[in-house]
Amino acid sequence: MNLESLQQSCPLVSRMGHPADSHVQVKNVKIGGSGLVVMAGPCAVEDEEQIMTIAAAVKAAGAQVLRGGAFKPRTSPYTFQGMGEAGLILLKQAGEAFDMPVVTELMDSEDFDLINEYTDIIQIGARNMQNFSLLKRVGKAGKPVMLKRGLSATLEEFLMAAEYIMASGNDQVILCERGIRTFETHMRNTLDLNVVTAVKELSHLPIIIDPSHATGKWQMVSPLSRAAVAIGADGLMIEVHHKPKEALSDGPQSLKPERFNQLMQELGHIHGIIRQTDSWS
Amino acid sequence: MNLESLQQSCPLVSRMGHPADSHVQVKNVKIGGSGLVVMAGPCAVEDEEQIMTIAAAVKAAGAQVLRGGAFKPRTSPYTFQGMGEAGLILLKQAGEAFDMPVVTELMDSEDFDLINEYTDIIQIGARNMQNFSLLKRVGKAGKPVMLKRGLSATLEEFLMAAEYIMASGNDQVILCERGIRTFETHMRNTLDLNVVTAVKELSHLPIIIDPSHATGKWQMVSPLSRAAVAIGADGLMIEVHHKPKEALSDGPQSLKPERFNQLMQELGHIHGIIRQTDSWS
Amino acid sequence: MNLESLQQSCPLVSRMGHPADSHVQVKNVKIGGSGLVVMAGPCAVEDEEQIMTIAAAVKAAGAQVLRGGAFKPRTSPYTFQGMGEAGLILLKQAGEAFDMPVVTELMDSEDFDLINEYTDIIQIGARNMQNFSLLKRVGKAGKPVMLKRGLSATLEEFLMAAEYIMASGNDQVILCERGIRTFETHMRNTLDLNVVTAVKELSHLPIIIDPSHATGKWQMVSPLSRAAVAIGADGLMIEVHHKPKEALSDGPQSLKPERFNQLMQELGHIHGIIRQTDSWS
Amino acid sequence: MNLESLQQSCPLVSRMGHPADSHVQVKNVKIGGSGLVVMAGPCAVEDEEQIMTIAAAVKAAGAQVLRGGAFKPRTSPYTFQGMGEAGLILLKQAGEAFDMPVVTELMDSEDFDLINEYTDIIQIGARNMQNFSLLKRVGKAGKPVMLKRGLSATLEEFLMAAEYIMASGNDQVILCERGIRTFETHMRNTLDLNVVTAVKELSHLPIIIDPSHATGKWQMVSPLSRAAVAIGADGLMIEVHHKPKEALSDGPQSLKPERFNQLMQELGHIHGIIRQTDSWS
Repeated sequence: MNLESLQQSCPLVSRMGHPADSHVQVKNVKIGGSGLVVMAGPCAVEDEEQIMTIAAAVKAAGAQVLRGGAFKPRTSPYTFQGMGEAGLILLKQAGEAFDMPVVTELMDSEDFDLINEYTDIIQIGARNMQNFSLLKRVGKAGKPVMLKRGLSATLEEFLMAAEYIMASGNDQVILCERGIRTFETHMRNTLDLNVVTAVKELSHLPIIIDPSHATGKWQMVSPLSRAAVAIGADGLMIEVHHKPKEALSDGPQSLKPERFNQLMQELGHIHGIIRQTDSWS
Repeated sequence: MNLESLQQSCPLVSRMGHPADSHVQVKNVKIGGSGLVVMAGPCAVEDEEQIMTIAAAVKAAGAQVLRGGAFKPRTSPYTFQGMGEAGLILLKQAGEAFDMPVVTELMDSEDFDLINEYTDIIQIGARNMQNFSLLKRVGKAGKPVMLKRGLSATLEEFLMAAEYIMASGNDQVILCERGIRTFETHMRNTLDLNVVTAVKELSHLPIIIDPSHATGKWQMVSPLSRAAVAIGADGLMIEVHHKPKEALSDGPQSLKPERFNQLMQELGHIHGIIRQTDSWS
Repeated sequence: MNLESLQQSCPLVSRMGHPADSHVQVKNVKIGGSGLVVMAGPCAVEDEEQIMTIAAAVKAAGAQVLRGGAFKPRTSPYTFQGMGEAGLILLKQAGEAFDMPVVTELMDSEDFDLINEYTDIIQIGARNMQNFSLLKRVGKAGKPVMLKRGLSATLEEFLMAAEYIMASGNDQVILCERGIRTFETHMRNTLDLNVVTAVKELSHLPIIIDPSHATGKWQMVSPLSRAAVAIGADGLMIEVHHKPKEALSDGPQSLKPERFNQLMQELGHIHGIIRQTDSWS
Repeated sequence: MNLESLQQSCPLVSRMGHPADSHVQVKNVKIGGSGLVVMAGPCAVEDEEQIMTIAAAVKAAGAQVLRGGAFKPRTSPYTFQGMGEAGLILLKQAGEAFDMPVVTELMDSEDFDLINEYTDIIQIGARNMQNFSLLKRVGKAGKPVMLKRGLSATLEEFLMAAEYIMASGNDQVILCERGIRTFETHMRNTLDLNVVTAVKELSHLPIIIDPSHATGKWQMVSPLSRAAVAIGADGLMIEVHHKPKEALSDGPQSLKPERFNQLMQELGHIHGIIRQTDSWS
């Protein structure tokens, strides 16, 4: 795949027809361009105290967007599936309290109106990257969409999924890499960090990295976040929890607030250097 | 993963709680057990003449179930997306004309009532294997479901997806292997044929093979079908088209009726031998 | 990759310049063509009683070639590395006692003369498929070579490795598929059975299947062997041990003689049917 | 795999028995520890003018080790296989002229004495990572060995290959990640950058990154190099050529000297920040 072939298959996503980087504006946050945007928060909203505590912490550390799941895609039918609407209400309250736009996942077209009422950015999860009905639905949302790459999606399929959203009328698309499935098991998935460079060549869309889901291990989140900024990602999505051992989901991959705060400072330093290099070579 | 751990994660799917092979009855067709069931038909329903011609041919050759897509999951938003309800009507007519139950894909919860009205078996495609909302919906369908394995799904995830359907109240589940994504490109995906043996050890559910989507090449369909029967699969899903070069989708992987007819005879011979061996070792 | 591009990269291996199937003659055994050749024996030669017992058993069951390792490629430096020359002597004795050609692995150019003295077929293992020095060395051997596919080798790389041997002057090459590395773990590697069909289209060389190393589980060996014959493989390499629980290596994947004997009969029946179909479609 | 299990399988490589980072001293260059070591040079030595020009350039930019191939592992038998001993002589001359230790690949035990005479670091290539005879041979070399990870090697297999070298008596081992084989094709292989963090947890050995072979595209080398330093790698191996379009091998992945010079400065800045963070979390 090169720029010419992508222009044929994905005319809206391709950089050929839109040479400048595009960006997505969510309230006062600009995703894409020269800045670095960090979305942070718990895997799942669990209760008011939890989401307010974490929101305060990530805001203080410099995160710009608050994440939190209310409908959780879980491999097993017998595990915690999220708080549902009650979780959405708490997430929105926390976002307003700390002046942060929020992002949460939409898993099904039937839930669109519900999710749409509470969130600023609609997340499409990795397992739904080729749920074409859902892509068409959020393509009519008039609201930013963060599209996660599927575990076995090629770059071309990833960009074609974004093209589905754009072809339905929505050009506010943020890409998110969260690891692909390979034979290697030292982390949950293999983060294809270099896809940032490949996307920057082929497309004008912003791309962020999710090191938390990719690795599944909090110890790997900081080093990989530093690498993501160094390679030129437009942002990060990081899971933070003040009591990771008590988290209802994904505790082992969550940073504590103090560690997250330290990381944010390191990322700022690296980003300062990267801004002075040319974008992707 | 072994039988003990699967019993923990998937009590309904596990063979431990249901030692005998289960089977799914669709009208007069029994899927699972000692027989071999072949589902055949075009990738997509295109018009009345096409579906009636192909239905007649596959029926004459010995196929028991008629397949045909009306809502097609396509990687690109700009390619043929299926005839929609008009295609469902034609598929049902053809099934009734030749006394064959029909199978077609459901892509979205919102289309459930529509698909449910026309089909005998509801197909969940590979891209939706972890669309948990959809799995829960068909779990309440009271009708057989054919669940295709996702391109990057481990066997455990595949069985957990089946568990979602069963946990929602539907025990009429047929598994379908159609290839996994690997580095190899001599066929579209790498058919993990040995998963049949692994499934037979762990679960009581029937499993069939789709060599057409796995390979993407008609020349590979017959050899792989013979291998699938030899390894002990409960059935096959095979794409057949009388004019493959004019097919609106997947022509290159479709067998012509005469080739399909010959294959059915070969499969009968191999199945005759396999029935006399013990099931999976 | 198609026949034209392969003809460019691999003129000796390509079927374009050699349309008929080639075969390799080893003493009175013909590998390739219309017959089915089974190579069987223990993973490693352990002592005289062991190799003689197993050789007698596999000969009686109908195997034509005796396998046995004397220099073993082991992932850990601390596990049994084979008997070395003492094992080669025993292997050759057993082959002569039961009138079977023998096959054993060569791991290093420096061992060439030693291995060459005792074996009828030189095996190049999967880990050495791109050990180009070794390929060139056996290319000058004037003796059949069985080349195993590397775990991450594409079909093109596999055929190019065979081209190395042929370009050095040796056209007696037998290909062997033993599984590729993927994310799936229900067996040790994922047997890419369909590569048989792909090889038959592109090359005139014979290809056999090793289900023992691919799966790592004896329960999967028989079903996969049946499938290998059904898809058109020219032969099989199967590990057999009369006391698998006491085997020094690979016991869990070894068939007992009685199970092997039963399998050989099943394979004969399936091969009888397959001979009557056309070769690869 | 965790530290406990690795201690069992790889007692010499494991960090448990050697908590401090180890380092390898090559002349006046220290690999491992708090510094950053860059090895640079052409893929293959082509002639005296070429190697001297490039050596001068990489030395001036700050590289500490000179790389250059004389025996090249090539997928096809019909492509340039390297200059052989003549190339080794030129490489050594260039290293001496610019006071840089040199590294070059050993492909076969039979070439050990030859390679050993000219090189300061012996490189074992990815295709030979499990060439156990070769590992044992360099284990007796009394000289630093750089071991590249195989394309389909798990981390455990990678570390076990290093254990082979150490168990034979050589503790001067440098690990090198150069990409694993996955389904993705936007770069040649998928660089598993996160393996740096995993290695740092499990082992005391230094690990460097080869972005040139991993990507196959010069445009991706700089971003990936920056990321490698940011994640904590001990060094880099980078291909540089002053006339990439005329290079006899791997031209498309080679940086021109001016681009390499700029990259070296960027890496210095990032490394300055990273030194102030804790090592791997």
